[in-house]
Amino acid sequence: MHTLSDLQTPALVIDAGVMSANIERMAARADALGVPLRPHGKTPKAPEIGRRLCARSARGLTVSTLLEAETYLEAGIRDLFYAVPLAPAKTGRVCELMQRGANLTCLVDHIDAARAIAERARQPVVLAVEIDVDGYRTGVPAGSSEMRELARYIASERRLIFEGFMSYGGASYGCRSKEEVQRLAERHRVALLDAQALLAADGVEARMLSFGSTPAVVHARTMASMTELRCGIYAFQDLFQAAIGACSIDDIAVSVLCCVIGASQQHNRLIVDAGGLALSKDRSTATTDRDGGYGLVCDAESGALAPDLYVSNVSQELGLITTQSGAAIDFTRFPIGSRLRILPNHADMTAAAYDAYHVVEGDARIVDVWRRVNGW
Amino acid sequence: MHTLSDLQTPALVIDAGVMSANIERMAARADALGVPLRPHGKTPKAPEIGRRLCARSARGLTVSTLLEAETYLEAGIRDLFYAVPLAPAKTGRVCELMQRGANLTCLVDHIDAARAIAERARQPVVLAVEIDVDGYRTGVPAGSSEMRELARYIASERRLIFEGFMSYGGASYGCRSKEEVQRLAERHRVALLDAQALLAADGVEARMLSFGSTPAVVHARTMASMTELRCGIYAFQDLFQAAIGACSIDDIAVSVLCCVIGASQQHNRLIVDAGGLALSKDRSTATTDRDGGYGLVCDAESGALAPDLYVSNVSQELGLITTQSGAAIDFTRFPIGSRLRILPNHADMTAAAYDAYHVVEGDARIVDVWRRVNGW
Repeated sequence: MHTLSDLQTPALVIDAGVMSANIERMAARADALGVPLRPHGKTPKAPEIGRRLCARSARGLTVSTLLEAETYLEAGIRDLFYAVPLAPAKTGRVCELMQRGANLTCLVDHIDAARAIAERARQPVVLAVEIDVDGYRTGVPAGSSEMRELARYIASERRLIFEGFMSYGGASYGCRSKEEVQRLAERHRVALLDAQALLAADGVEARMLSFGSTPAVVHARTMASMTELRCGIYAFQDLFQAAIGACSIDDIAVSVLCCVIGASQQHNRLIVDAGGLALSKDRSTATTDRDGGYGLVCDAESGALAPDLYVSNVSQELGLITTQSGAAIDFTRFPIGSRLRILPNHADMTAAAYDAYHVVEGDARIVDVWRRVNGW
Repeated sequence: MHTLSDLQTPALVIDAGVMSANIERMAARADALGVPLRPHGKTPKAPEIGRRLCARSARGLTVSTLLEAETYLEAGIRDLFYAVPLAPAKTGRVCELMQRGANLTCLVDHIDAARAIAERARQPVVLAVEIDVDGYRTGVPAGSSEMRELARYIASERRLIFEGFMSYGGASYGCRSKEEVQRLAERHRVALLDAQALLAADGVEARMLSFGSTPAVVHARTMASMTELRCGIYAFQDLFQAAIGACSIDDIAVSVLCCVIGASQQHNRLIVDAGGLALSKDRSTATTDRDGGYGLVCDAESGALAPDLYVSNVSQELGLITTQSGAAIDFTRFPIGSRLRILPNHADMTAAAYDAYHVVEGDARIVDVWRRVNGW
C-alpha cells in the first residue's frame, strides 16, 4: 500500500469520502427539486469521477471540451451535452462522436454558427440554443427575435435537430444574499419557460430546458418544468465556493500535496515546492471577504486545516507560506522535507496541471489513482 | 503543408523567426558582458527549443523541475542547473540523472535540506547555495553566518560537492527605472563576490557565481567575475515583459490560436474558444500601466496586432474580447468561425496548458511541431 509520503511532489490528491458526500448532497438537492441533474464533467475530467457523478444523476454529463466528450464516451458515458458554443470547425469531431455512439447535444448562440455547422455536418447535429439571461457571458438575448429566428432555423434545417434552450446564470456568483440568488434564479427559470412558449407558438417544440449555475440550483425555490440542472464544482468544492458560503472548508475534496523546501525566520515564511503552475494563478477568493491568497494549508496526512497559514505568493515552482494574522510560524512543526496539502482557490484551474488524482479516504493511504485528461 | 486553419482550437503557436531573433539578441548581450549565458528551460520545456537556446550559449540549461532535467538530458543536453531548492525526497531522481550522464548542479538554502540530501545520496550530489539578495523569495541571507556554515558543511560532507553560489534578483521586476535596476544588479553582483570571498577565507572555493533575473542582465553595467547569467523568458517574451519595457510587442514569439464562436453587438464583444485554461489566469500586466487583460488580440495569419482589442474576461473555456477604448467592434472583420491569435500575459503560465508548439515563420504555414512537457 502506497501512502502520500511515497509521492513525488507536487501531486494532486482527492479524498473520495469527501467527494462522495458532496455528490450525494447535490443529488439529494436535485431529488428535492424533482429535476434531473446533469453534472459538469469539466471539473474532474476523469472517467472514474464521471461514472460516480452519473451514478447519482438521471442524465449523463455536461462537458466543456470535445476531448472531455471523447474521454467520457470511451468510459461508457453516452449522454453528453457540450455546453460551449460549437466552433464550426469542430463539427467533424462532433459527427465522429455521434458515429461512435454518443447521444451528444451541442450549443449555439448565433445563426451564422448554426449555418456553418449545417454546411459541415455529415449527419444531423443536435443543437440547443443558449439564451442570455444576465449579460454574463454568452447567449442570444432571451425572448428576442434573434432567439426565435435561430431556433426556427435549426428546427427547419435537415442537417440540424433543435433540442431546446439552455442558460447559464453566472451572475448568481455575484449575489450577496440567498434572496438575491433566488430572485435571479426565478428570472432565469421564467426566461427559459418563456423561450419555450414563444417557440411553441411558432410550432417548434423545445424538449430541453437546461438550467445552470450552482448557486442558483442550491438556493432556488423551484425548478419546476426545467428538464435538467447543470452544476459543476460541487463534487470537489474549493476555497471560492467556501468563501461565498456554498460549502464549508471541510467539504473541499481536492488538494495539492507539496513539500517544505525552505524556511526563513527572518521573513516568517515557509517555502514549498508548489507554485503558480501547481496551484494555478487563480485568485478568485480575492474578490470575496475570505481571501485565501493562493491557497490555505492543511496537514498532509489528515487533511485537517493548519489554522492561520496560507500561500501568500507564488513563483512558477515555489509557494511562499506565511500567517494571515502576522503571528510567528512555529517552524518546529514544519521541518524541511515535511509535507503539507494546499486547498485550491478554484479546483478546475488547479486540477488542470495534473494528469492524475491520487485517491485517499481520510488518511494518507493511497487507495487508487484516477487518470485525468487535459487539453482540447 | 498544414496551416493554422487546419488546427483544432485552442492551440499554441510559436513564430520561430521571432524566437531566433530573441535568442540572438540575448546571446549578443551576454557576449558583450563577457559572461556565459545559462538559459532557463522552464519557459519552453521543449527539447527542440532547448537545443536552439544551447546553440547560442556556452553553458547548458537552467531547469525548474526534474522532469525538465530528464527531458533535456534525453535530448542530449547534459549540463543542467536545477535552480529550485531540492526537496530531499527528490535526491533519488537527482542521482539517477547523474548516473544517466547529466552534469547536474542542484540548489539548497537550508542546512537541514543539505543534511537530508547527504543522507539519501547514493553518489556525491553537486550543490550550489542560494543567497537572498532582496528578500524576494528564497536563499540564505547574503553574507550571514548561516550562509558560511551551509557552504562549509557542503564542502566538508563527502556525499556532497560544493559548487558555489547563486542568486535570483526578482525585485528587479519591481524597479521603475533602468538606473534602479542597475543599482540592484550591482548589489547582487557584489553580494555574490562577497560570498565567494568569505568562503575563500574559510578555505572553500566557490567555482560558480550564477546570477539571475532578466531585467538585471539586460541593464547591468557589468557582470564581471560572474560565471554565468540565468535568463528565462527572453526567447518567448510576453505582454508583461513588453509592459515593463524589456521587449516590444513585436518580439512576442508565442500566441494562442483560437476561433470566434460568438458575437454580441449589444455587449460589444466577441467570444472566442480560449478561456482561463487556454490563456491562464495570470494577470501580471494588471500591476503595470499597460494592463492587457487576459491578452491582446492579433490577426491569425500574420500575427499582426489588432489594435484596441483585448480579452477582457475569461471563463474556463471562453474568452470575452472587447475594445480597450470602448469603441464599437467592427464585427464584419471577425465573422463567426474566423480565427485570431492571443498574446499571453505570462508565456510560462500560458504555454503550460499545451503539449506542443505549432511552429510558424511569419505566416500561417506550420513548418514544424515541437513537443512540450508539463508536470513534474
